[in-house]
Amino acid sequence: MEKPLNVTQKLISSHLLSGEMIPGTEIGLKIDQTLTQDATGTMVMLELEAMGLDKVKTEVSVQYVDHNLLQADFRNADDHIFLRSAAQRFGLWYSMAGNGVSHPVHMERFGIPGKTLAGSDSHTPASGAMGMLALGAGGLDVAFVMLGQPLYIKMPKVLGVKLTGKLPDWISAKDVVLEMLRRYNVQGCRGMIIEYFGPGLANLTAMDRHVIANMGTEMGATTTVFPSDNEIRRFLKAQDREEDWMELVPDDGASYDLFDEINLSELEPLVALPSSPGNVVPVREVEGTSIAQVVVGSSANPGLRDFWIVSEIIKGHRINNGVSMDVNPTSRQMMENLIAMDALSSFYHAGARIHQAGCMGCIGMGQAPATGKNSLRTVPRNFPGRSGTLDDRVYLCSPETAAASALTGAITDPRTLEKRYGIQYPLFKQPEREIINTQMLLPPADDGRNLPLEKGPNIQSLPKFDRLKNNYSIPVVLKVGDNISTDEILKAGVKVLAYRSNIPEISKWAYAVIRENFYKDAKRAKEDFGGHVVVAGDNYAQGSSREHAAIAPRYLGQVAVLAKSYARLGWQNLINFGIVPLEFVNKEDYDTIEETDVIKFEHLLDVLAPGKNITAVNQTKQLQYELKHNLSERQVKVVLAGGVINYFRMPSSKPEKTEVMSDEV
Amino acid sequence: MEKPLNVTQKLISSHLLSGEMIPGTEIGLKIDQTLTQDATGTMVMLELEAMGLDKVKTEVSVQYVDHNLLQADFRNADDHIFLRSAAQRFGLWYSMAGNGVSHPVHMERFGIPGKTLAGSDSHTPASGAMGMLALGAGGLDVAFVMLGQPLYIKMPKVLGVKLTGKLPDWISAKDVVLEMLRRYNVQGCRGMIIEYFGPGLANLTAMDRHVIANMGTEMGATTTVFPSDNEIRRFLKAQDREEDWMELVPDDGASYDLFDEINLSELEPLVALPSSPGNVVPVREVEGTSIAQVVVGSSANPGLRDFWIVSEIIKGHRINNGVSMDVNPTSRQMMENLIAMDALSSFYHAGARIHQAGCMGCIGMGQAPATGKNSLRTVPRNFPGRSGTLDDRVYLCSPETAAASALTGAITDPRTLEKRYGIQYPLFKQPEREIINTQMLLPPADDGRNLPLEKGPNIQSLPKFDRLKNNYSIPVVLKVGDNISTDEILKAGVKVLAYRSNIPEISKWAYAVIRENFYKDAKRAKEDFGGHVVVAGDNYAQGSSREHAAIAPRYLGQVAVLAKSYARLGWQNLINFGIVPLEFVNKEDYDTIEETDVIKFEHLLDVLAPGKNITAVNQTKQLQYELKHNLSERQVKVVLAGGVINYFRMPSSKPEKTEVMSDEV
Repeated sequence: MEKPLNVTQKLISSHLLSGEMIPGTEIGLKIDQTLTQDATGTMVMLELEAMGLDKVKTEVSVQYVDHNLLQADFRNADDHIFLRSAAQRFGLWYSMAGNGVSHPVHMERFGIPGKTLAGSDSHTPASGAMGMLALGAGGLDVAFVMLGQPLYIKMPKVLGVKLTGKLPDWISAKDVVLEMLRRYNVQGCRGMIIEYFGPGLANLTAMDRHVIANMGTEMGATTTVFPSDNEIRRFLKAQDREEDWMELVPDDGASYDLFDEINLSELEPLVALPSSPGNVVPVREVEGTSIAQVVVGSSANPGLRDFWIVSEIIKGHRINNGVSMDVNPTSRQMMENLIAMDALSSFYHAGARIHQAGCMGCIGMGQAPATGKNSLRTVPRNFPGRSGTLDDRVYLCSPETAAASALTGAITDPRTLEKRYGIQYPLFKQPEREIINTQMLLPPADDGRNLPLEKGPNIQSLPKFDRLKNNYSIPVVLKVGDNISTDEILKAGVKVLAYRSNIPEISKWAYAVIRENFYKDAKRAKEDFGGHVVVAGDNYAQGSSREHAAIAPRYLGQVAVLAKSYARLGWQNLINFGIVPLEFVNKEDYDTIEETDVIKFEHLLDVLAPGKNITAVNQTKQLQYELKHNLSERQVKVVLAGGVINYFRMPSSKPEKTEVMSDEV
Repeated sequence: MEKPLNVTQKLISSHLLSGEMIPGTEIGLKIDQTLTQDATGTMVMLELEAMGLDKVKTEVSVQYVDHNLLQADFRNADDHIFLRSAAQRFGLWYSMAGNGVSHPVHMERFGIPGKTLAGSDSHTPASGAMGMLALGAGGLDVAFVMLGQPLYIKMPKVLGVKLTGKLPDWISAKDVVLEMLRRYNVQGCRGMIIEYFGPGLANLTAMDRHVIANMGTEMGATTTVFPSDNEIRRFLKAQDREEDWMELVPDDGASYDLFDEINLSELEPLVALPSSPGNVVPVREVEGTSIAQVVVGSSANPGLRDFWIVSEIIKGHRINNGVSMDVNPTSRQMMENLIAMDALSSFYHAGARIHQAGCMGCIGMGQAPATGKNSLRTVPRNFPGRSGTLDDRVYLCSPETAAASALTGAITDPRTLEKRYGIQYPLFKQPEREIINTQMLLPPADDGRNLPLEKGPNIQSLPKFDRLKNNYSIPVVLKVGDNISTDEILKAGVKVLAYRSNIPEISKWAYAVIRENFYKDAKRAKEDFGGHVVVAGDNYAQGSSREHAAIAPRYLGQVAVLAKSYARLGWQNLINFGIVPLEFVNKEDYDTIEETDVIKFEHLLDVLAPGKNITAVNQTKQLQYELKHNLSERQVKVVLAGGVINYFRMPSSKPEKTEVMSDEV
């Protein structure tokens, strides 16, 4: 008799190309679908060009444009034209600017239960809502997946979370995932896949599950998985894709490496305080905090329901005149359905600002809050500065809490709305069939080999990087604390992301949130010493999958990071671009290092090997550090080659990549 | 028996505080209403603060926020909060961000036939559509109006344009004003007020007239005036303001200084080619020119009809997938009415990007076109770089032409739509009553004297300027050609306008469109010589009313401009900020000056007097120039004082301003 499997195990075992399902070891997975967005996708397309791809090898690959839609100058529009041409050239679907946010659109139009998805966006796990194994990855990893390579990850533990009960009125899926964040904080699920199961699922729709799966990323989870049950069938039917449904549920007796339980009936409205998604408290504890902005939308609350309920709450009322209420529609399709339900006018009438469909303020593309004012948002993240305002004060909450607070002008528990305004809890009825909008989804060309790539003047070829050297004596240019996010390593926002296809330019923003002229110090270190080191605390490079957070430091001469620990995606990106991610064996060594200390590494080409520690010397302090790394044999070769593009270009790694790769692991 | 008057003469004579209605002489007008927007309004509010205003003296003053809504960082949101606080402090209405574009909203909510309006926006004349005398002015002029001062203008000639016939299907008001631009180009109506009359008016709605009045500015007209007839009564009734209507039509036998005539029945679709609104040709002459963008919206085509007809044309069709169709709603109210007419869904379904209500791409706030691609827009202007892309190629057209071209992907005569797609000309039926939306119009405070001004860190006090000196020997730092617009003197766009309340910062962008580092050269000239001169051809400083195009050069040390001629608004702004606007008596002298030539002025304080020419010497070329100016006695005093704020602060100009002023003229 076969061992009973949970959904995660079923998904992994059906896509396992290399390795074994032993937590902590590297496995190679066959990936069926990919997703790229504009902030990471231009780089992916340049990588595909550099590696000479003819046509993607995946079943479905989709290039979305949702992050940067402001078009403050030519660069943004040039990127869109480049991405369109690259999608046609390489055989991808192209979702045009303003069509919608990648994750919900992907789930509606392309997601298939039982399939794997790799996306160059950290919220890719959202599609786990429908029984997919959906993994965020660096852009380069996704490029390799398109080339037909496996995706390599560390086999995670599976955290089974049993859901029981039913959400009370005014409490919704966002409160479920905020409860998880309250329990696990921003690091608590690293190395895990969160799998939800249990009778509570019956009361969560596919888009509710999307909310929860989307923000699993915020806890550091590798991904989040839900079963594909009758609710997913209903969802696909509403999308006119019932034929894509298959059941995928845990076997009877399936077990989990770790276990937790949430009784939905006991939840109350929650809010994450500035400036971490992990700072979760009940709304009632901060009720009355004045706000100057409410933002509704993003991949964290993208469902038709999430907008409909806000519309119903504010209908006939007036947004507080001290508040700017910004509404970022999920997609053209969502808006059409909202109009059909007569739920759009009330936004306009109450005083909301309805923007084009896309990520917008969630990723700092406009909607930056005013100096010293609080902003309440239904988005997934509130890392410092992500909103586009340096010292921002962003709170995260559910659509119900956002709507209630927009009316009062202060953070408000939505359960008080009846008493305050006589508003009854609105009961949402899912439409049986949604209006489908595929007008701005351009299918792949049959044969794109002769189609040109249209490159504007800001789209530059990838810089070439050197191989790793044997010996270094290089200074610590920057020392940072715990939980440094990719938003701090390379900030988002309209000004910076405009240069995402121009490495020399974008590198000037490396660590600029922490120190304005880091890049000058790093350049000097490169000239004087041949490179530099950054020292970090725990969970370095958490957050988005932005690979520029590795490319830019690398371009500035970063040889290694010495950290207490790493976030998964950030760690992989470092390796992909040839930065050595080292960990202190003795965490207290961290305290002994200061900026400008010179660190000496010797015989790196010999001593870097799987499972072996290396030694570095702090020449300034005359101290010796024992450092570990978790590189596989393949990853060691990648780092020695100076990054995975160099490695891929090396003759020995070329033939029959998949087999070679699996031999190596 | 009294002399029969035209509408313009009635409006002026009923508001005349000083001077006589003799063309070319200065008159002072009582102003009933003012309009400011965010791009100019922050400066106006700082000026009111500097001059110690308690409460505006006008009947109605409205502060709109429509230009910069992107909020790429804190500055934009800080400005909105500052403007809100200033509106409350000084007794203005406040139209919140995203409420809508000033000109159509003003007409709908505040405009009253027979009243005068001064606005710190060059398209203020749009309200002339309803029988108002609506004048664009520099921000400072508008600030003085709020202080109870008259607005001074040169009495213009009245150009009577008789309209006959009826617009054919597929031809609309935009084609009427493009026909005017074809005839008069961008300078042809300087010193004139255009007054439309005749039987053709019967077929033009209030918002059609708005289109025509709005773009009178593009011909250099002082303003445009329409009668207030039964159509205006219908319009006000639809806005639930019938009681504000009064009839205002020309007397029988009224005459005009100049005369022209348009037979509406003979018009065809027209388009203005890059990069001037005056480059007008029939659409059929450029049909097939490929486009990558279509922008619909702005104060030049703000009517419900203008959006409705686009909706009807694209309904059931698909935007060409090489085109980004950007839709900028006029106002929340317009959107509510569009939804009520079931005319919004087709935009979403066909693939359009619907933005928040505001000016947006019209003023380069996002929607910048891609490098080398054509953009077709219903906006009023296509000056070089105004779109946010330096070498842009922007075409101007009607909503019908825009919609037709969005479907085909190339400039298309809308009269071909029936043959191409079987589309019949949609017949618009004006709603008898519009849905009214005043939710985001904040009324003035009863007493704002104790309310604080909320200033973010980017909002800086006005710099103080020196009085004019007696003698200068200063270099020509820049020589430019004809028709230099304020967009070239101080460009618009998200990057630059962010600094509109921070003169030292924004000055770095002075003339940057023409020469990137102008400000460095100007600073050097200030240090070495004590100032600089700019030399220009005809129609210097045409375009928007942006007073930063005078403040920034002044801050950098500009003492005088030597030009062949000036645009009215730009000329007034120069005077207001203490730059001497001089004109060549012999235009060929222009050809003898080169950049770096040093120009010597002597005894300025004595020789500057009304009606007298002055002499300057080109020390480098050993040439002498005779220069005139059209300064009134009051304006001479203003220039000598170093600008109108200095002048206002001088004790002698303070008491009983209106009377003192009228004595002086």
